[in-house]
Amino acid sequence: MYIPTYQDVVDAHARIAPYVHRTPVLTSSYLNELTGAELFFKCENFQKAAAFKVRGASNAVFGLSDEKAAHGVATHSSGNHALSLAYAAGRRGIPCHVVMPRTAPQAKKDAVIGYGGVITECEPSTSSREEVFAKVEAETGADFVHPYNDPRVIAGQGTCSRELVEQVEALDAVVAPIGGGGMISGTCLSLSNIAPEIKIYAAEPEQADDAARSFRAGHIIADDAPETVADGLKVPLKELTWHFVSTHVTDILTASEQEIIDAMRLTWARMKIVMEPSSAVPLATILKNPEVFAGKRVGIIVTGGNVDLDRLPWMNS
Amino acid sequence: MYIPTYQDVVDAHARIAPYVHRTPVLTSSYLNELTGAELFFKCENFQKAAAFKVRGASNAVFGLSDEKAAHGVATHSSGNHALSLAYAAGRRGIPCHVVMPRTAPQAKKDAVIGYGGVITECEPSTSSREEVFAKVEAETGADFVHPYNDPRVIAGQGTCSRELVEQVEALDAVVAPIGGGGMISGTCLSLSNIAPEIKIYAAEPEQADDAARSFRAGHIIADDAPETVADGLKVPLKELTWHFVSTHVTDILTASEQEIIDAMRLTWARMKIVMEPSSAVPLATILKNPEVFAGKRVGIIVTGGNVDLDRLPWMNS
Repeated sequence: MYIPTYQDVVDAHARIAPYVHRTPVLTSSYLNELTGAELFFKCENFQKAAAFKVRGASNAVFGLSDEKAAHGVATHSSGNHALSLAYAAGRRGIPCHVVMPRTAPQAKKDAVIGYGGVITECEPSTSSREEVFAKVEAETGADFVHPYNDPRVIAGQGTCSRELVEQVEALDAVVAPIGGGGMISGTCLSLSNIAPEIKIYAAEPEQADDAARSFRAGHIIADDAPETVADGLKVPLKELTWHFVSTHVTDILTASEQEIIDAMRLTWARMKIVMEPSSAVPLATILKNPEVFAGKRVGIIVTGGNVDLDRLPWMNS
Repeated sequence: MYIPTYQDVVDAHARIAPYVHRTPVLTSSYLNELTGAELFFKCENFQKAAAFKVRGASNAVFGLSDEKAAHGVATHSSGNHALSLAYAAGRRGIPCHVVMPRTAPQAKKDAVIGYGGVITECEPSTSSREEVFAKVEAETGADFVHPYNDPRVIAGQGTCSRELVEQVEALDAVVAPIGGGGMISGTCLSLSNIAPEIKIYAAEPEQADDAARSFRAGHIIADDAPETVADGLKVPLKELTWHFVSTHVTDILTASEQEIIDAMRLTWARMKIVMEPSSAVPLATILKNPEVFAGKRVGIIVTGGNVDLDRLPWMNS
């Protein structure tokens, strides 16, 4: 498989600029005091479609030839990639077919439909998802844009940390959530080229810690259908993301469900921003491992803001 | 009573700069499309103490002589002024005494205590509040910083719209919530001096519409203890704020409880920011009166973000 280069990130940035926001970076003196670190939150919850995934999706959609684009795009996704691809396809005016677990949050399904995407439901497991998807792909002839194991997607996600280092000087570390590894891979791709001194940490739910176990074992370990409140982080690493994770990541840290929910609530209460559970995993791991980050300037990728406002996780616990 | 001048706003801005944020202005293409206007949200929910009131409170606290400051400051408030004054007093290292309705949100009480303020509770009515406060003032000798009927406070609030017109060109209108009228008065003070072409609209809950009725009647009408989800807007106009409202405001628009809650939820869902119910009243009135704002560039003051995350209003309705 083609391994994207930093030039692909630069090209992606130019290609997607008309369709995505350069998101702001926010700080919180309260959270700085609490963690003993200087935290810089890159707010992709304010991104188009409220998710960083619109970067990679837009890069894939707008990189297609007119001929290929005419058949549309297709994907399977636990949520944000789906609505991001639907958004990008809508901007280009081409069809978007999405296979989604029937258990995905209603807010995400509604958003996909709102952007003009067509949903086919599957069971909430990686195996069912791939099976249903193969059918949809065969029927439509659409271009498959994998949520993360795709060089176009990884190059697109790399534009996020490229902006972050332009916005914040002298970062010591960047922490991003890890599910399939698309954002982390894009981060590795950009930072290893333009700021190799910055350490890259991945943050993962304990209950879906396949990436952390893969990292320690030295090869991909994939679980089928793990369960976590951080619903964006249930999918396993694949060949291309494993390449970046195994080459450039300093460590993968994990947090419990309660720690993730507490960090999410803390961010809402103190920073007054709406972020989804997956986005709270970095702060949860920083609060859990203060010695790793004390005195450091730490960038945090707030990956998205798509959350069901009628079912907030601290109200169930 | 002394009527503050624009020079007082300029002086306040310099005085409070070390203690408050220059807050960002956010936009939403979705809400622009929905309203037919171009909306610019001045995000005082990201302000210190998560409320614009820290501007006026800081101006009062840091304008005191050392001798006066030694006795501390005191106030009565339904919430945000209380915690803003406690924050400012804490930054100066002087005592802060607060009379608060026992029904005020626990989150606001906790925040006052967190900043080092001392709370004395009263009943949730203007009359009880004033009675209990007189006692506290007599016992402590603290300087009374009224939540809005105070020239220092109004000059401080005026710094918000001064920033807004620096941040956004060619506004046609500004809409801010109205309770006692402190923010609206500060807005009138600044805009009538630096951008008199900008129309000023006040937005008020139907269930606490004393300012709208005052505006139509041509004199102050005060209700005792109105009930609304927009808990920051229950207090009546006073002499000084009536001066500004009656002189410079174009109109006062109202919205129902459900319209306020819907606008609040819409902002959370689409803009991914946490704002309190009072802050949603401007958008609610814009959605209700599209013909007033269609095609216009409209600034909206998002007054604060202090909300009880365990009791969101759309979950009770």
